Amino acid sequence: MNEQLNDQTNEFQRRSAELNDLLCILNVLAWDARTQMPGGGGEARAQQVATLSAVARERLLDPAFGAAADEVVGDGEASETGVRAAQQALTAIDAMRRVPAALTRDLALLRSEAQDAWALAKAGNDFASFAPTLERMVALTRQLAGVLGHENHPYDALLNTYEPGLTTATLLPLFTRLREHHLPLLRAIQAQPEPRSDFLTRHYPAQEQKAFSLAAARRFGYDLERGRLDQSAHPFEISFTRQDVRITTRFQEDFLPGALFGTLHETGHALYEQGVAPELSRTVLTSDLLGLYAVGGASYGAHESQSRLWENRVGRSAAYWNRHYPELVRTFPEQLADVSVGEFLRAVNWVRPSLIRVEADELTYDLHIMLRVDLEMQLISGELSVQDLPEAWNARVRSDLGLDVPDDANGVLQDIHWSAGMFGSFPTYTIGNVMASQFYEAAGAALPELEAQLERGDYAPLRGWLQHHIYRHGRTYTPHELLVRTTGEGLNPQPYLDYLTRKYSGLYGLEAT
Amino acid sequence: MNEQLNDQTNEFQRRSAELNDLLCILNVLAWDARTQMPGGGGEARAQQVATLSAVARERLLDPAFGAAADEVVGDGEASETGVRAAQQALTAIDAMRRVPAALTRDLALLRSEAQDAWALAKAGNDFASFAPTLERMVALTRQLAGVLGHENHPYDALLNTYEPGLTTATLLPLFTRLREHHLPLLRAIQAQPEPRSDFLTRHYPAQEQKAFSLAAARRFGYDLERGRLDQSAHPFEISFTRQDVRITTRFQEDFLPGALFGTLHETGHALYEQGVAPELSRTVLTSDLLGLYAVGGASYGAHESQSRLWENRVGRSAAYWNRHYPELVRTFPEQLADVSVGEFLRAVNWVRPSLIRVEADELTYDLHIMLRVDLEMQLISGELSVQDLPEAWNARVRSDLGLDVPDDANGVLQDIHWSAGMFGSFPTYTIGNVMASQFYEAAGAALPELEAQLERGDYAPLRGWLQHHIYRHGRTYTPHELLVRTTGEGLNPQPYLDYLTRKYSGLYGLEAT
Repeated sequence: MNEQLNDQTNEFQRRSAELNDLLCILNVLAWDARTQMPGGGGEARAQQVATLSAVARERLLDPAFGAAADEVVGDGEASETGVRAAQQALTAIDAMRRVPAALTRDLALLRSEAQDAWALAKAGNDFASFAPTLERMVALTRQLAGVLGHENHPYDALLNTYEPGLTTATLLPLFTRLREHHLPLLRAIQAQPEPRSDFLTRHYPAQEQKAFSLAAARRFGYDLERGRLDQSAHPFEISFTRQDVRITTRFQEDFLPGALFGTLHETGHALYEQGVAPELSRTVLTSDLLGLYAVGGASYGAHESQSRLWENRVGRSAAYWNRHYPELVRTFPEQLADVSVGEFLRAVNWVRPSLIRVEADELTYDLHIMLRVDLEMQLISGELSVQDLPEAWNARVRSDLGLDVPDDANGVLQDIHWSAGMFGSFPTYTIGNVMASQFYEAAGAALPELEAQLERGDYAPLRGWLQHHIYRHGRTYTPHELLVRTTGEGLNPQPYLDYLTRKYSGLYGLEAT
Repeated sequence: MNEQLNDQTNEFQRRSAELNDLLCILNVLAWDARTQMPGGGGEARAQQVATLSAVARERLLDPAFGAAADEVVGDGEASETGVRAAQQALTAIDAMRRVPAALTRDLALLRSEAQDAWALAKAGNDFASFAPTLERMVALTRQLAGVLGHENHPYDALLNTYEPGLTTATLLPLFTRLREHHLPLLRAIQAQPEPRSDFLTRHYPAQEQKAFSLAAARRFGYDLERGRLDQSAHPFEISFTRQDVRITTRFQEDFLPGALFGTLHETGHALYEQGVAPELSRTVLTSDLLGLYAVGGASYGAHESQSRLWENRVGRSAAYWNRHYPELVRTFPEQLADVSVGEFLRAVNWVRPSLIRVEADELTYDLHIMLRVDLEMQLISGELSVQDLPEAWNARVRSDLGLDVPDDANGVLQDIHWSAGMFGSFPTYTIGNVMASQFYEAAGAALPELEAQLERGDYAPLRGWLQHHIYRHGRTYTPHELLVRTTGEGLNPQPYLDYLTRKYSGLYGLEAT
């Protein structure tokens, strides 16, 4: 490597580090706004975020940054991760350049306006008041898809910003397989008696919930020297480098599972971020440069695979509760005095169609996602108008879940995503479920003692395997590459379908299908 | 105003707003680091702050910003506040330009290093380990004073960054008057019996302290819709526009006055920030451009005048406790069962020389400040070496306070300021005391019912007067201009000296002097 090239590498690293600093700061502002900020601070905060986002965009599009990245890519002796970082930077620069500054600004302003309009419409159960804003959001998002570019469906352009490399050509057949599996399994479960669940809604004081949740997060390996747990209306995980990875939970005193599994879910995200290799801090490989978001996970789906893995595959398993239920009973002795571990396990795995996505069980959750994806694809292609959206929503809930939607607040208005312009993000929840099982099977194959380890509450081997094969790499690999490296193949729903069938057959005493 | 000029005004406003956004974000990062951040996050946070500070500096020094400010200043029809904002921007640009980027960087790096070294040295009571770092800090600070420029003492250049317009030529004679007043008054007080104070160190649970403190802050007018109270090791106030003004307190369960008066102190700062006129948000007039700090107060001294006014002139008065002591007794009925309001008032106004500045009473506090200022002036001029500093400190504590310093942790190592490079900031505490009394007398002259209002716990008229005459102006006026506008004269210690004499004569039953 000659002197000049070395300079360019350093220049690329220096500029990447500063960009990552700016994205981490944007994350700090977001965390604060969602957990600490007094109500009056919202407008000023929005302006601060807009200003800093513009600075970050300016730095990303600085020709010197692109030139430094070009030099690294052209260098025959640069490291593989160095070249990948530079390539990712060039891809982001190319995409960001294609989005006119005016469109970026209009989208940012509309996002802020639309989220307010959505919150009001949801509170007032008044879709009509939100419709004009949503129409503008759909129009701008279609513009965005147009400038980002796509080969087939415009939705691909949006999907790609959340799940690099994934297209509807892969997604839709996968969804078909899930649907063909889930619907008969759901019908079989519904033919069985409902489990007992009365005890879940007894009074569980928040303070004890928090103590138990924190202990559970630490057991999985969440490092509180580099993290903290707060309360927020909508639980989330966010990081400002691997050294500061924060999670939030919502403690409902009249519903135990919310915080219990919500914390495990966010802990899964946090383990990913805390497990990124130190040398990837302050680089492109912990930066979503197009989304202006500091994150160490390969994609939204890859990230979700870890929250789902720790929440569902580990946290809702018989092994987990056989091990930890006695501690839960010690925490809530009166509330759980008349509840066996088997009853508890069946209650927290109770499958039943419901109206609200975030309250859904593992099986019907995917049905919620698929209906949203189908509808948002039609919105983006122009096949469905905003005006016809509520009716389409309700029809789909009827046909897929067998439920009548009583009002839009419990229907089409329930999620914030569309008001936030996040078209294309819903699929990543289900992709996360699919990937979680693929990774879990691969870990199981590599760790012959895995089940025994989990039965005795030893989570370090599983976490160690995930860290070595997934977490430490940050965003070095695409989700597809990660899958191929760890499992030998790309997205494959079979392990997930097998897991669901096995699990619910056992819990509900179904005949083998 | 012609079209082009209007453009320049808009350009100046736009760039000022973005700069203020960046400074507000720096404040958010500081608040988070001091109240929320897990220990592991420190290094990454320092890098984020360094990156954002560099961005802010770059924006400040952007020639287009200076050009826009020039145009505003040259415009005969620009508003007075507009011209003042532009002039302040030009002054900051001029000063920032004179400081080489390398010196800025070296100082920032050394500040971080020196504060760690200081904390270790203080914990280990080992001044020698800190001395080499402090020597480098003094050397860099002398360089800074040199490039900033001064007419007489190099200390003036530093003082000016905290208290615009103040020089040692004004400060030192004022200090002499204070000393000549304080020392005889202290001796007279020391000749009297000590008040009873045993009850101050009983057990006061933090939760009840917090409830009482919050109620006290709200009574003064602190708006929690635009603020919040947290705990931190070192209490402080910080703002991100007038819409988000946060304070912290330290609750010590074995010492009641700490949080009680600490909260009133920070509330005074917060009232200033919350009272800035809305139209000054996101302008130069709520920005310390040279210090890269978002703040609405005219100067450190002016800010301190408000914390002192609300803490001491209001919060330690007989009127205040006659009104609110019954509520304190209801909060702590067992702890205060045997304590009369008079005993309580005398205890929280107990004057006695002590080793630690932050624990000092109103009278000896100024003596702590004066000894620090004299020593730091000598360090900056080169008359005193770092090596000789501890001995000089101890001699001065002996002569001024009559105490032997047992070790450096309780002596020269007690304050963080020098390790933070804040030479020139100590005077502003005493300047704040002086200004507080000047403002309070002016308010009293304008509000004939003031004492009666305070006696019945009606703080709105006083706050309203302060808001109208001081708070709403932000940094529009220099502290000297503010004083002249409100009191008809510049810094004058007489109201402060009269207040102290009157107060302690009453409390200690001294003969009129």
